[in-house]
Amino acid sequence: MIIVLKPDAPPEAARELLARIEEKGLTPLHMPGSERVVLGALGDERVLAELRLESNPYVESVKPILAPYKLVSRELRPEDSVVRIGRVGIGGEAFAVLAGPDAIEDEASLQETAQAVKSAGASVLRGGAFRSRISPYAFEGLGAEGLDILARTGRAAGMPVVTEALSEVQLEEVVAKADAVVIGARNMNNFPLLKAAAESGAAILLKRGLSATVEELLLAAEYLLHEGNDRVVLVERGVRTFETNAPAMLDLTAVPFIKRRSHLPVLVDPSNGTGRRELVAPMALAAAACGADGVLIDVHPAPPSARAGGAQALDHEAFRRLMRSLVPVVQAVGRSLA
Amino acid sequence: MIIVLKPDAPPEAARELLARIEEKGLTPLHMPGSERVVLGALGDERVLAELRLESNPYVESVKPILAPYKLVSRELRPEDSVVRIGRVGIGGEAFAVLAGPDAIEDEASLQETAQAVKSAGASVLRGGAFRSRISPYAFEGLGAEGLDILARTGRAAGMPVVTEALSEVQLEEVVAKADAVVIGARNMNNFPLLKAAAESGAAILLKRGLSATVEELLLAAEYLLHEGNDRVVLVERGVRTFETNAPAMLDLTAVPFIKRRSHLPVLVDPSNGTGRRELVAPMALAAAACGADGVLIDVHPAPPSARAGGAQALDHEAFRRLMRSLVPVVQAVGRSLA
Amino acid sequence: MIIVLKPDAPPEAARELLARIEEKGLTPLHMPGSERVVLGALGDERVLAELRLESNPYVESVKPILAPYKLVSRELRPEDSVVRIGRVGIGGEAFAVLAGPDAIEDEASLQETAQAVKSAGASVLRGGAFRSRISPYAFEGLGAEGLDILARTGRAAGMPVVTEALSEVQLEEVVAKADAVVIGARNMNNFPLLKAAAESGAAILLKRGLSATVEELLLAAEYLLHEGNDRVVLVERGVRTFETNAPAMLDLTAVPFIKRRSHLPVLVDPSNGTGRRELVAPMALAAAACGADGVLIDVHPAPPSARAGGAQALDHEAFRRLMRSLVPVVQAVGRSLA
Amino acid sequence: MIIVLKPDAPPEAARELLARIEEKGLTPLHMPGSERVVLGALGDERVLAELRLESNPYVESVKPILAPYKLVSRELRPEDSVVRIGRVGIGGEAFAVLAGPDAIEDEASLQETAQAVKSAGASVLRGGAFRSRISPYAFEGLGAEGLDILARTGRAAGMPVVTEALSEVQLEEVVAKADAVVIGARNMNNFPLLKAAAESGAAILLKRGLSATVEELLLAAEYLLHEGNDRVVLVERGVRTFETNAPAMLDLTAVPFIKRRSHLPVLVDPSNGTGRRELVAPMALAAAACGADGVLIDVHPAPPSARAGGAQALDHEAFRRLMRSLVPVVQAVGRSLA
Repeated sequence: MIIVLKPDAPPEAARELLARIEEKGLTPLHMPGSERVVLGALGDERVLAELRLESNPYVESVKPILAPYKLVSRELRPEDSVVRIGRVGIGGEAFAVLAGPDAIEDEASLQETAQAVKSAGASVLRGGAFRSRISPYAFEGLGAEGLDILARTGRAAGMPVVTEALSEVQLEEVVAKADAVVIGARNMNNFPLLKAAAESGAAILLKRGLSATVEELLLAAEYLLHEGNDRVVLVERGVRTFETNAPAMLDLTAVPFIKRRSHLPVLVDPSNGTGRRELVAPMALAAAACGADGVLIDVHPAPPSARAGGAQALDHEAFRRLMRSLVPVVQAVGRSLA
Repeated sequence: MIIVLKPDAPPEAARELLARIEEKGLTPLHMPGSERVVLGALGDERVLAELRLESNPYVESVKPILAPYKLVSRELRPEDSVVRIGRVGIGGEAFAVLAGPDAIEDEASLQETAQAVKSAGASVLRGGAFRSRISPYAFEGLGAEGLDILARTGRAAGMPVVTEALSEVQLEEVVAKADAVVIGARNMNNFPLLKAAAESGAAILLKRGLSATVEELLLAAEYLLHEGNDRVVLVERGVRTFETNAPAMLDLTAVPFIKRRSHLPVLVDPSNGTGRRELVAPMALAAAACGADGVLIDVHPAPPSARAGGAQALDHEAFRRLMRSLVPVVQAVGRSLA
Repeated sequence: MIIVLKPDAPPEAARELLARIEEKGLTPLHMPGSERVVLGALGDERVLAELRLESNPYVESVKPILAPYKLVSRELRPEDSVVRIGRVGIGGEAFAVLAGPDAIEDEASLQETAQAVKSAGASVLRGGAFRSRISPYAFEGLGAEGLDILARTGRAAGMPVVTEALSEVQLEEVVAKADAVVIGARNMNNFPLLKAAAESGAAILLKRGLSATVEELLLAAEYLLHEGNDRVVLVERGVRTFETNAPAMLDLTAVPFIKRRSHLPVLVDPSNGTGRRELVAPMALAAAACGADGVLIDVHPAPPSARAGGAQALDHEAFRRLMRSLVPVVQAVGRSLA
Repeated sequence: MIIVLKPDAPPEAARELLARIEEKGLTPLHMPGSERVVLGALGDERVLAELRLESNPYVESVKPILAPYKLVSRELRPEDSVVRIGRVGIGGEAFAVLAGPDAIEDEASLQETAQAVKSAGASVLRGGAFRSRISPYAFEGLGAEGLDILARTGRAAGMPVVTEALSEVQLEEVVAKADAVVIGARNMNNFPLLKAAAESGAAILLKRGLSATVEELLLAAEYLLHEGNDRVVLVERGVRTFETNAPAMLDLTAVPFIKRRSHLPVLVDPSNGTGRRELVAPMALAAAACGADGVLIDVHPAPPSARAGGAQALDHEAFRRLMRSLVPVVQAVGRSLA
């Protein structure tokens, strides 16, 4: 890392810092300029925190040279990781479609949706049992009952299933019954939950927080790998900006940006990422075009009567239309459906 | 609420919606215009979610008339709430200063800080035992041991203490030993944690999420009151924007905005809210000037050797200087130190 | 529009407002609820400003029912507009590629680039003569000389040319020599410039401002149409958010969002919209997949020695590779190159 | 500056860059690390642009050591600049209040406002003649006639006057008749306008753009000083974020941030910066508390009938109340009214 000293820093301050850098096993560098003294510390920057450079009153700024993540980076593992969710591999050449309702409402309707999305080309069934919600007056999901419905429906349809857990307790239940656990956007930095997910060994769909930078998403993934679980799939699901035409702004640029830096698979969620039914299909196509490894699509048999997420859900027919337009784009970029 | 129908909505769609509005006990209104048909639903808008209007294919937009929160609003309770943390009341005429280190490191140093901040005018001791961190390589706090140190130090100094809990398990420990629990910015929408905090009956410092609107902060507080706990103090601690000169942008306008709409007390955290030592004092003064009920200040005996938060911590002398400049401003707005 | 009155508004306030609404030729509506009185004004909401409702001390909020733009909307003109830039039509079935350097440096190098992009499939030559720059120490472009080089090169290559004007004086020169004028992101709300552009009758590429909502972009276009010039092409070029991995975040969702609401063509600029060479090609493909009518690509014979924009420019070979990967995606969505 | 090379950069790339750095008169540094080669260039970083380092295919990132501005910085001029607007000095010990209507409507009403704000303690009269507006359907101001009214009214009241110019033509008129020209937020990067303002020699109130970082505001001011005019006053007027409770978020932290880095005076505009009448007074007090050199306040004799800006304007009585609460805060920070 590079350490810029303040104009009034005395020579002793530089000497003391260089000594501390050396103590930590990094190579110290001294670059006295006409307007500022600059110090360098070459080596593993993860010891940065211990050096507490930002707190030093003579330090003007600290500039890292290396990315703050290691385990998720392509420098460590150049080839694409493929994460298995049941029999479906996420990452690699195939393009995966994970589909299902925002909130599971009852078994019959989920079965109907499972059949519809499977026959249209989806390979994984998703559905919400435990729901995050920003108002105490919104639907909180069927909970454990919903999870059971999901597991039975997936088994019957021959599809692996994924669903979200909001707490360590829920996580244990989800891991026991689903093929992958979703860490939602609001929990991307919920470290007790991340730790439990890592320790479970389950495949994890880690969603980008609403105001998380791509680097922070990669750091949260780094945390999971550091705790011993590398079955991690990243999910771009939109971020919060000044734009009010939709609840989130889908940051598709994150996809090629991450793919160049990390070996982890990246999915896109154009349903939550746009919040509007009419925008889901074009953004799913765009996700495929820019290199995503798959998409998560909110599907409900009758969106106008959905208990949650209805504004963004596709009905079965709209999902079939989406799949028909998606396949040519997937092929145009040299891939095929998982 | 106001429901704007799409240009192509048939008359039956309007009739059906009006019937559903009436069923829910709201007063339906029909306003046929030249370019759009507009419907109204007058009454308790909290049933909004059940009407699932956003999912209706003939609905163009839904515009609420009332705020989505009730229990936290001044319409329900016009006079200021005062929340007691130990013997200190937050809200009302007094201006409270809560001070202490970002991370508790050891008992001697915390005792020293407690004495320093108390003698300078602080009334509550804060300090981090369980820490949120965005990198696996950062300090995670002393945990339960830190909590014990905090409790003993507060007792010895005669100061109530507050600290953060990151999970339901930690929350139980914190509630047993501290006078108030902090729900951090990254957990503002962690509903299992909010529920546990509400059920504990403890005083809660609820921090605004990094990308939470003021309305969402009030909705998170509404959730706590709805679950039966009205000992809630709101904390503005900066939000995330495009500006890169600091890790967050302190949104002081939120203070008078909230004070007009809600009876809950509002604190400001200029330490986390600016992330830079040099900006803490001026923003603490600004917080007092615009009507905040107090401030949270990061204080450490020797910031350059702090294990966390050193870039924003004031040392004891800087804290004393801050207090000397703060008191005249507090008095200028007709208040006095708690 | 819907007008929500404050809880303490007296009946006279409502009566007076209803009278003013009627005077303006709108249909007034009175909806007294239990918690708020709500008024409605049905008709042309463009008189909204004259009613000055936001200033009324008894008005809590004003909610428009209709979009604030009319002339650019599909409700007025349902079929796609096609804007001709020289012999090339933007909009409709064809997908246009506009390519060239950020800053024109000399005639030989522009000729080389013109040949390269034309043979690879681009139909319009772009290049900067008058440059916007945020530092006084950056290159400001060749000015009038650059414009002459561009005009001559376009003529020789048989390609229409487009370039930016920053002021009314520059606009006159640009309109005399180029086939379309670019209004840059920093000038989207420069009304004297917009007015001059409208009056010139020239084809206009109107770029979205860095912090402009899609609605504001449509309002700026509305201004141009209202002043009598409907030869307007909208350009999504990225907006400013908290994300720091690139100078802007490309908001591709804006493309299908606008296409549903407006008849105007929409281009995407993945070069300025990502600011990084490596991200240009995937985002150009994504733009085509989600329905854009074309892309603007920054191309330079030798980006490392470019006087401006080098970080995002493709060299000729990279541009050819981009075109080879773009064509299958354009075809997959049922279109072909312009 | 510090230049980090990509992992695959060959030794020749480093050698070539070091040679180019030396050519430019900067001191080159070579720091080969285990994971990256890092180069340094010590000296005047304003030649950064000419080195075109960002475009080099072997360069991973470029990190400046020095701020990109010089002339506006305290390092060059440590003591506060005082900019005279007529007989009123902005900056230094005094706190200035500039007050008047968003849009000038007629002479009688402006005279009334001038008397009211002067007797309450304002020292400068502001008022809009040429107005920026985002909709073609909004009021565009009285133009040259408004400017004449402003000049006459200021003279009669013995107050210097300031008003905005939107174009080079308007600027000439404004400079001839007003004591300072306002460059509005939408024109902060309108370089032809900045150039004309610099050349006029007039005092300039430079408003921060809606999505401009503080560094970009300082760079725009640097441009003015670089063109030879140092009579520049910076204005914080709110920025655009995800928060929707007001049209802008007032970034008061910018005030102490700038005051530490630049010698230029800083004003705050809590009227445009909050967009809501009820928030103007508390934020004006906060501005004074955190070190601003003055405030701009929107005042209108009868806001409900104002042709523009009515939602944020204070009437004369509310302005008097604001001044009564502001004076004690100004004194609490050791200053007095200009």
